[in-house]
Amino acid sequence: MSDLLLRAIRGEKVERFPVWLMRQAGRYMKEYRQIREKVGTFLDLCKNVDLAVEVSLLPERLLGVDAIIMFSDILVPLEGLGIKFEFLEGEGPKVYWEGKISPYDPKANAYVYEIIKRLKKRTSLPVIGFSGAPFTLASYVIEGSASRDFRKTKVFMWERSYDFRRLLESITDALIKYLSAQISAGADVVQIFDSWALHLSREDYEEFALPFVEDLISEIKARHDIPVIYFFRGSSSFLDLVLDLPADVLSVDWSVYLPSLMIKSQKAFQGNLDPALLYASEDTIKMKTLELLRSIPRKTSYIFNLGHGLAPDMEFPKVKLLVETVKKFTLS
Amino acid sequence: MSDLLLRAIRGEKVERFPVWLMRQAGRYMKEYRQIREKVGTFLDLCKNVDLAVEVSLLPERLLGVDAIIMFSDILVPLEGLGIKFEFLEGEGPKVYWEGKISPYDPKANAYVYEIIKRLKKRTSLPVIGFSGAPFTLASYVIEGSASRDFRKTKVFMWERSYDFRRLLESITDALIKYLSAQISAGADVVQIFDSWALHLSREDYEEFALPFVEDLISEIKARHDIPVIYFFRGSSSFLDLVLDLPADVLSVDWSVYLPSLMIKSQKAFQGNLDPALLYASEDTIKMKTLELLRSIPRKTSYIFNLGHGLAPDMEFPKVKLLVETVKKFTLS
Repeated sequence: MSDLLLRAIRGEKVERFPVWLMRQAGRYMKEYRQIREKVGTFLDLCKNVDLAVEVSLLPERLLGVDAIIMFSDILVPLEGLGIKFEFLEGEGPKVYWEGKISPYDPKANAYVYEIIKRLKKRTSLPVIGFSGAPFTLASYVIEGSASRDFRKTKVFMWERSYDFRRLLESITDALIKYLSAQISAGADVVQIFDSWALHLSREDYEEFALPFVEDLISEIKARHDIPVIYFFRGSSSFLDLVLDLPADVLSVDWSVYLPSLMIKSQKAFQGNLDPALLYASEDTIKMKTLELLRSIPRKTSYIFNLGHGLAPDMEFPKVKLLVETVKKFTLS
Repeated sequence: MSDLLLRAIRGEKVERFPVWLMRQAGRYMKEYRQIREKVGTFLDLCKNVDLAVEVSLLPERLLGVDAIIMFSDILVPLEGLGIKFEFLEGEGPKVYWEGKISPYDPKANAYVYEIIKRLKKRTSLPVIGFSGAPFTLASYVIEGSASRDFRKTKVFMWERSYDFRRLLESITDALIKYLSAQISAGADVVQIFDSWALHLSREDYEEFALPFVEDLISEIKARHDIPVIYFFRGSSSFLDLVLDLPADVLSVDWSVYLPSLMIKSQKAFQGNLDPALLYASEDTIKMKTLELLRSIPRKTSYIFNLGHGLAPDMEFPKVKLLVETVKKFTLS
């Protein structure tokens, strides 16, 4: 296996920074759109093992990244919990929760593990599995759809704290089983996406997000000897709390100044570059990317990524230029 | 004049915390909607001195707040800079910038000063004037409309840094004149709204937002002996930098834990409560508000407010309950 990513996470000396991108297989890619057209809904694509494998592998050939993330969505484990959802074109996800939650059945997500098994046979790159973080997943369940203020989740959390904690516990237990099954299927690394916890107050983050993500990571680390990446938006907000999590890698957005953070913490870091940079000219993309790469302190552990996922209206050649710029930057 | 707000800002012993709310005169209020219907556009209402005064005063009678903020919008000084804009119903503001900026003509905003003069005659409460922060206003000018990623502003900022700084300088100069004229007209306090700087990276905030807001506040403080409030969303992100600003009061959102912050800093603080609380039950509103009030350390200086403005779909009785809960909480 091409082990640049894993060596970088372990803090070993590497010849260059590894690079992969969140949503690296996505709508900005012609080849993705061609495969996407072959199936009905986005969920159909997630469940079509053959096509999901093809989609997952596109960035290896087209971009030359150093890791393959399985193609899926953070909502799919809800099926194993007996919660219905769908993806509506142009509207984002809808979750239909009726207040009940079944014990998680990992078999409901067998197609996810099958995608990972096939990927392991098709690529020599490390394969990244993933899940949402407990709070982020719970907020989808309660909110039902995209939200600007997470009012339903917050009111539920404040007024029915006991029920909310039970929901978070059920989801955490499910995610332990779900990620464990991904690892058993061959995932070399897992990333936990905490997309929405940034909307919480600090006290609410400490009470309703942090303990559950901590449980999830601790359990995974106790059962498996593979690295865990914690991606959290609004990275500067609760940074001091997040630094104590047992994650191996913290994937941060652009609200933190990475060089001073990396000098303070022994953890590995990932991400940081503002994705809006991909709307700039090629010269600017190169210049700002090199600026970031040059700012990473020596004897630290860093994986290049953006601070958030690629967007559908980004231009493929610019994404490719970004990856090439990172790959050409050699460390002596 | 009823001076509770000003005494609290100065750190004097007060009998209770003063309270006012951002967007306290707004669409959630039946009486506001009735006045709003009398004019064509939102900008027409801002420019109609009689009606803008009536609207500004509604919260004194209907809510019993401790300060009146003039009814206006942060975009109006753009008119004095020769930049056209409009407010489209249900769409938010559109700014039509053609790349040029005229020297600021404070007379273009004469109606704003007139509103303040009239308010001073009509109320014994302190009158709050305001402006946007330079970066926030510049981002409206370049973006042209609401944005999720501020891509135009950021690309302009990165690729035409010199022009962007010139724009920020022009806007800062304009805002110094604009706020000075508000103060000369009678404003007792001014608040600077930095709604969008939270989308910047830390380095970009330090380079393109902070120095200009610092200039603005320093100039106002050098010319006038009145308190300046700096409101900034994403308050936890660049907090260490913001603490050094010459503002008298920092108005923070719910991402910071106020008690520990207030013990560390000598500044006055405002805000903090998550506005989503107003979607909860009356019991929850009371309980969580009292929880915040009880957490404020003694011998500090605090003004109650939400962490962001009131929303059109909030219920008036709940907003009133919120204000009453604060007013009943006496300090011994």
